Amino acid sequence: MEAMVVKEILREAQFRPDKMGKADLIRGEMLSAGLNCFEPGQEHSAHVHAGQDKLYCVLQGEGELMIGAVTTSFREGDLALAPAGVEHGLRNTGPGRLVVMVVFAPPPGHR
Amino acid sequence: MEAMVVKEILREAQFRPDKMGKADLIRGEMLSAGLNCFEPGQEHSAHVHAGQDKLYCVLQGEGELMIGAVTTSFREGDLALAPAGVEHGLRNTGPGRLVVMVVFAPPPGHR
Repeated sequence: MEAMVVKEILREAQFRPDKMGKADLIRGEMLSAGLNCFEPGQEHSAHVHAGQDKLYCVLQGEGELMIGAVTTSFREGDLALAPAGVEHGLRNTGPGRLVVMVVFAPPPGHR
Repeated sequence: MEAMVVKEILREAQFRPDKMGKADLIRGEMLSAGLNCFEPGQEHSAHVHAGQDKLYCVLQGEGELMIGAVTTSFREGDLALAPAGVEHGLRNTGPGRLVVMVVFAPPPGHR
């Protein structure tokens, strides 16, 4: 597999008027990275990934994060792990857009 | 495994006068995240991780990144993947400090 470089990842953000937007950034054999992009008020409702750890890193904006029994405010510069099998969700509670980098290990579709 | 949240990850940065500083942030079963912290001129010389993908995300500063045959400038907001088995290194070429978040999958010491 070859090196992959993506400059200025915030420029890859994709927003949708009806729901959270997604953008793929990088995919390796053991991890993948992408963006989840929220207009004000949009959310990613609670869900679970079986067998995948998911890392969240807030690049822009602020929101409310739920992972298992933990609910916390979450803003630019914060990091969180939703371990495999633990329910998690995210909502943009701020006045502006929210952009979060998500890293999955293993990547979606991995066997 | 439980949820983990780290607020303001840049505040976890650890610098050393003699070489790159490291800080652990989060560890799951399938990935881990930490910081690599460089004073001006410091570098992480070329090395390889067998069986681990390594993701780099620049949080602050600028540098020169080498992955395999690719050498590129690398600054705040940029992302790169050093795939398992591919040599990579990083050097702070800017006037200020360089802080890079690194994500490993699987985490170091994983069996």
